Amino acid sequence: MTQQQFEGLKQLRLLLEENPSGLSDFLRDQHPADLAEWLEELGDEQRVKVFNHLDAETAALVMGELDTDTQAGIVGDLGRERAGDIIEEMDPDDAADLLAELTPEEQGQLLGELQAEDAADVRELLEHEPDTAGGIMTTDYITVQEHMTAQAAIDHLRRVGPEAETLYYVYVVDAAEHLAGVISLRDLIVARPETPVQDIMRTKVVSVRADQDQEEVARAVSKYDLLAIPVVDGENRLVGMVTVDDVLDVIEAEATEDALRMSAVTPDEEDPSGTDFGAGIWRLAKPRLPWLVALLFLELASGKVIDHFQTAFNPATLALLTIFITTMAGEAGNAATQALAVVVRSLATGEIAVGDVLRVVWRELRVGLTVGVIAGVVLAGLTLVWQGNWYLALTVGVAIAVNIIVAKILGAFFPIVITRLGYDPAVASGPLITSITDVTSMLTYFGVASFVLRI
Amino acid sequence: MTQQQFEGLKQLRLLLEENPSGLSDFLRDQHPADLAEWLEELGDEQRVKVFNHLDAETAALVMGELDTDTQAGIVGDLGRERAGDIIEEMDPDDAADLLAELTPEEQGQLLGELQAEDAADVRELLEHEPDTAGGIMTTDYITVQEHMTAQAAIDHLRRVGPEAETLYYVYVVDAAEHLAGVISLRDLIVARPETPVQDIMRTKVVSVRADQDQEEVARAVSKYDLLAIPVVDGENRLVGMVTVDDVLDVIEAEATEDALRMSAVTPDEEDPSGTDFGAGIWRLAKPRLPWLVALLFLELASGKVIDHFQTAFNPATLALLTIFITTMAGEAGNAATQALAVVVRSLATGEIAVGDVLRVVWRELRVGLTVGVIAGVVLAGLTLVWQGNWYLALTVGVAIAVNIIVAKILGAFFPIVITRLGYDPAVASGPLITSITDVTSMLTYFGVASFVLRI
Repeated sequence: MTQQQFEGLKQLRLLLEENPSGLSDFLRDQHPADLAEWLEELGDEQRVKVFNHLDAETAALVMGELDTDTQAGIVGDLGRERAGDIIEEMDPDDAADLLAELTPEEQGQLLGELQAEDAADVRELLEHEPDTAGGIMTTDYITVQEHMTAQAAIDHLRRVGPEAETLYYVYVVDAAEHLAGVISLRDLIVARPETPVQDIMRTKVVSVRADQDQEEVARAVSKYDLLAIPVVDGENRLVGMVTVDDVLDVIEAEATEDALRMSAVTPDEEDPSGTDFGAGIWRLAKPRLPWLVALLFLELASGKVIDHFQTAFNPATLALLTIFITTMAGEAGNAATQALAVVVRSLATGEIAVGDVLRVVWRELRVGLTVGVIAGVVLAGLTLVWQGNWYLALTVGVAIAVNIIVAKILGAFFPIVITRLGYDPAVASGPLITSITDVTSMLTYFGVASFVLRI
Repeated sequence: MTQQQFEGLKQLRLLLEENPSGLSDFLRDQHPADLAEWLEELGDEQRVKVFNHLDAETAALVMGELDTDTQAGIVGDLGRERAGDIIEEMDPDDAADLLAELTPEEQGQLLGELQAEDAADVRELLEHEPDTAGGIMTTDYITVQEHMTAQAAIDHLRRVGPEAETLYYVYVVDAAEHLAGVISLRDLIVARPETPVQDIMRTKVVSVRADQDQEEVARAVSKYDLLAIPVVDGENRLVGMVTVDDVLDVIEAEATEDALRMSAVTPDEEDPSGTDFGAGIWRLAKPRLPWLVALLFLELASGKVIDHFQTAFNPATLALLTIFITTMAGEAGNAATQALAVVVRSLATGEIAVGDVLRVVWRELRVGLTVGVIAGVVLAGLTLVWQGNWYLALTVGVAIAVNIIVAKILGAFFPIVITRLGYDPAVASGPLITSITDVTSMLTYFGVASFVLRI
C-alpha cells in the first residue's frame, strides 16, 4: 500500500467510527480498486456499513476486486435482495466466481434474484472449470453478423450501448454464431456505410477453446499482444471473451503458485497463494505438512546410505568424513536447485520444449563439469589448509565435483520427466530435488571416499 | 510451440531451402509473433533471407517481437539503410530497446537514418533506465488539449490517424503539457460537438513517474485494470505511455528473475532469464558459480560445528547420530524454503508489507510448532522402529521439531530483513537459506543430542 492509499484507509476508518454521515461523499471520490484494498483490512461489520453507502454499480465494481472469501462473507451479511442487486451489476465472470464460492442453496437463491438472461449467463459460466478459458471468460462481448453493412453494425453497437472498454474488438459471427472474424470500431467508422462487414473484417482471429488451460490463454494473449481473446466451443461457436486484465491476474496467480510449488508448498484450493495471513494456523500448515513428512522418508534414505557405509571406515576416518556430510549434501542440493529453476522457467516461458530433454541434459552436464571442477578445486584447497590431509582433500574435491555434475543433471532432467508424465513441472520442487540429491550425494561421497582412501 | 506452429516452421524451412520464390506469399499470411518465434530457431543467414522478403512494416512488427540479441544480429547483417527503414516503422519503445543493444557508434549511424522527429523520440527513450516506467514506455500516444471542443478533438484524432489500438485512452493535457485528464473515443462521439473536452474528461487519472520501477507500473496497471498507463515527469508533464502488452512482458520477466534468484542463480544482464540455450557454457555457468562457491564456505561452517561436537560423544553414539545428519539438515532446509517462498511471494504481491515483520514471524513460529511437533513424532516413531533406541528416538524427535521451528522463523525473517536493507527479497534464495539452516540445524541437533544423551 502506498502512503497515499494508507492515508485513505485511515480516513475511511475515522469516518466509519466518528462521522458515518460523511461516508457517502468520501466513497464517491475513491477508485473501486482502492476501496477493495481497504475493505480487506476492515472487519465484517464495517465492510457491510461501507457497502450500505455505495450505489449498486460502484458496489459491483468493488465486489469484483475483492477476494472471493471476502465476497462470500459480505454477500452473507447483506441480505438476499441487496446482494442480488449488486451481483446483477457485476461482470458476469466476476459474478460467477463469487457464486462459485457459495453453497448450491445460496447460489440458487441469488440466481433467482437476477433477471432471467443474466442468470442464464452466470449459470453457463459456472459450468466451466475455474482454471480454464471458460472459467475466466466473460459473456460481456460484442458481436455483429457478417452480412450486416458497416452502417447497420454501427447502429447495432449504438443500440446495445456497450462500455467503451469492450469496443476495441467487435467479433463477427455467422448465422450459427461461428466466429468468422474481428473488426474494430474505427474500421467500421472509416468504411463506406453500405460495405458488408465480411468484406472489411480481419478473418485471421486467434481464439482459444473454452476447455483450454488458463495458462495457454495467458500465453496466447501475451504472445500476440491482445487486449482480449475470443473463446469458442468445440464447433468454433463464440461463447465468451477473456480480457487482458483477467490474464494479468492469471499470470500473477500462476507465478505465485509456481514459486510455492517449487518450494514444496502445495497451494490450497481456498487460498491458492498460501499467503492468506488472516487464515488459521492449521490452514497455513496444511499445504506444507504433507511434503515435510514425505521428504522425511527420503531423508531417512540418505541416512540409510550413511549407515550402510559406516562399517567400511575406521572411526577416525569416519569422523573426518562426517565433517563434510553437510557440505556434500548442501552443495549438491544447491547445484540441483539452480538447474531446476532454469529448466522450470524455460519450460514455463516456452523457451524449451519437453522434446529438448537430451539437449538440456547435455548442456547441464557441461555446466556441471565447469562449475563442479572449480568447486572441487576450491574445496580441496580449503580442506588441505584446514585439515592438512591430502587424502581427505582429494576425496572431498573429487566427490563434490561428481556430486555437482550429478545434481545438475538430476535438476534438469527431473522437471522434464514430470512434464512428460503430465504434471506441472513446478511440482519438481527445490526441497524435493535437494532431498533426492541428499541420497545421491551420500552414495557418491562415501563411494568416492571408499575408493580414494583405499588407494 | 503448438503443433500448428511447428508445421509452420517446417514449411518455412522447406521454402527457404527449396523454393525461395514462394517465400513472400507464405510470409504474408503469417502473424508477426509466429514469424518471430520461428526466426529464433533459424540461422543468421536464413533470418536475413526472411527479412529481405518482408515489407518494412511487417519487418518492424517481427523485429519488435524478437529477443534483443537476435535483433542486434539481424540489424548488423541487414545493412544500415534497410535497418533504418525497419526501425523507422517500429514502435519507438521497441526501437529504443533495440538500439540500446548496439555500440554507441552503431546507434549514432542508425539514428541518422531516421527522420529527425522519430530519432528525437528514440533518443529521449534511450535516456531512461531500462527497468523503469521510462524504459518501457512508448511515445506513441494521443493527446488533445483540454480547451478543445469535442468536435475539434475528433477532427484532431482523424488528422493524426492513430492506430485503433491507441484510441481507447486519449490523454488530455493543458497548454504546458501537464496531464489533466483522460477521455475515450466513445465519450467524444456521444458528447455534444461544442462541449469543451475539459467538461467531459475524467480528471482522476492513475499515472506513474518515469523513474518508477517497472514492477510498480505493472502493479498499478494490474490493480486498476488498465489497458495503458500515462507516464509523467517530476512536474506532471506527460512524457509517455506504458501499454498492457509491455506490462505482461514485465510480469513474466520479473517472475522468471525472481524464480532464478530464489534458486541462487544471479540473472545476467545480457540474458536476464538465464535460459538462453544458445549461449556458451561459460555464460550459463557464470550466474551460478559465485553462489555455489560462496555457499561452500557456509557449508564448511556447518562442518566446523560437527567437528566441534565430535569429541563430546563416544564413537558408537557419534556413528548413530551421524546417520541423521542429512535428515536434520535437509528437513530444516525444506521447512525454511517453504516459509521463505510464502513470505517472498506475499511481499511481491503486496499481501504483506515489510512492517508486518512481527506478525509474520509470530505466525511462522506457530506454523513451525504445529508442523515441527508432528514431524518430530513421526521421526521419533520411525527411529524407534529402525534403531530400537529410546534415547536416539527422543533426541532426533526433539531436535527436528526445534530445527523446523527455527528454520520457519529464519525463512520468514530473512526476506523481510533483506527488503529492509533495500534489496530485492528474491535474493533470499532457497540455497542460501538452506545453507544457513545447515549451520543452525547442526548446532541444534548436536546441542539437543548432548543434552538428551547425558540425562
